[in-house]
Amino acid sequence: MTDSGIGNEVKALVFDTFGTVVDWRSSVVKAGEKLSRETGQTVDWPTFAEEWRRKGYHEQIAKIRAGEAPYETTDVFMRHKLEEMVPKYGLKLTDDQLEWLHKVWHRLDPWPDAVEGLTRLKKKFVIATLSNGNVALLVNMAKHGGLPWDMVLSAELVEKFKPEPEMYQSAGRLLGLPMNQVMMTAAHLRDLYASREHNMRTAFVRRPLEWGKDGPQEGEPDRQKIDVVANSFVELAEQLGA
Amino acid sequence: MTDSGIGNEVKALVFDTFGTVVDWRSSVVKAGEKLSRETGQTVDWPTFAEEWRRKGYHEQIAKIRAGEAPYETTDVFMRHKLEEMVPKYGLKLTDDQLEWLHKVWHRLDPWPDAVEGLTRLKKKFVIATLSNGNVALLVNMAKHGGLPWDMVLSAELVEKFKPEPEMYQSAGRLLGLPMNQVMMTAAHLRDLYASREHNMRTAFVRRPLEWGKDGPQEGEPDRQKIDVVANSFVELAEQLGA
Repeated sequence: MTDSGIGNEVKALVFDTFGTVVDWRSSVVKAGEKLSRETGQTVDWPTFAEEWRRKGYHEQIAKIRAGEAPYETTDVFMRHKLEEMVPKYGLKLTDDQLEWLHKVWHRLDPWPDAVEGLTRLKKKFVIATLSNGNVALLVNMAKHGGLPWDMVLSAELVEKFKPEPEMYQSAGRLLGLPMNQVMMTAAHLRDLYASREHNMRTAFVRRPLEWGKDGPQEGEPDRQKIDVVANSFVELAEQLGA
Repeated sequence: MTDSGIGNEVKALVFDTFGTVVDWRSSVVKAGEKLSRETGQTVDWPTFAEEWRRKGYHEQIAKIRAGEAPYETTDVFMRHKLEEMVPKYGLKLTDDQLEWLHKVWHRLDPWPDAVEGLTRLKKKFVIATLSNGNVALLVNMAKHGGLPWDMVLSAELVEKFKPEPEMYQSAGRLLGLPMNQVMMTAAHLRDLYASREHNMRTAFVRRPLEWGKDGPQEGEPDRQKIDVVANSFVELAEQLGA
């Protein structure tokens, strides 16, 4: 079904990245397994990846938002968490191995449909990240995966993390568009509902494997707040007439 | 001549845009001439373009840097100047025509070698703007001309204009690189010399037609401060082994 109405009103699509554009979980697990093969050290990498993500990223962002920690970039605080976790998991790494593992977030692989879908969407719309990741991470991730962004919008540009209002508002301000011409695209309903409070259009893309085969799932979207629902970026492009 | 040394030390190239990547003068003149044909109103468009650029852009940035005017984006202050200039040149325009002329800065054409050179450079380096133009202008210009930036860095992200230190420093900070791994690329020696004070590498690309056939020229570069000199982006790519 082509919703040519909304596809003609919207001028730009901005994307959550971790989980929506790239498969952080399997990329981190794959890097960990490579390190295990090289060093002969066994680690439960799915558990490691999930702890790094939940505690090193989500919980730290919550602390910064609550004023319990100073603003830092994701690269900085995820590195701190990694340095705590490595000995806890019984790992011994050289400085180069630690740096390589830390930088796996700059080398996350796109979901299989992401590049094809973005390439189609780019012909009709401005496409940009709108991510809590820092700029260098997002630029390097795009280089690694071939993500054809027109612009990299990041928490680092406003020193506020989603779902703070400043982050959503920065998309309209920096792209020079009214908020209702910018569509937030995410696999996370919380992100989309927050963007809706700032008058953005919303696209929910299901990523059922984000937390693994038996991982938690998003619920059903409230269609009062979600304009488009798709199972891939290619489906999204079709629905928007791109 | 390939300078593989510097081409292997540098990780990112950042580009001045107006005059270096795009030919602002002939693009504005061409838009003006189109408007003249459509409205039957005659204007000396080369003079118009140069006044808009010198007074609406350079002089206003100088005022903001001197603290004589508040920070605004280029879109805002160049629009103000346009609204002054239109009646002065005896032009009568509809709101749509005025908006279309204003937005010509979002539709500037690249120099003929720019897309080919950038496409080659992008395979080896991170490539980004580092421009006094605002983000929306630069994103739209890239879309118009097919400029394949990895990132759009702009005065709007730091609310300071080149040659303020914060602008040059933002390139290293946001790209996550030491300053001596970032190469400032420009057709203007003043911009390059200022970047050098912040430890950047420098590439001077000659654009002898920036101000027209008989327009002012840049002098000879001080090779103590300029690492690479080229006549096009394709030559630059060759010299950097890209």
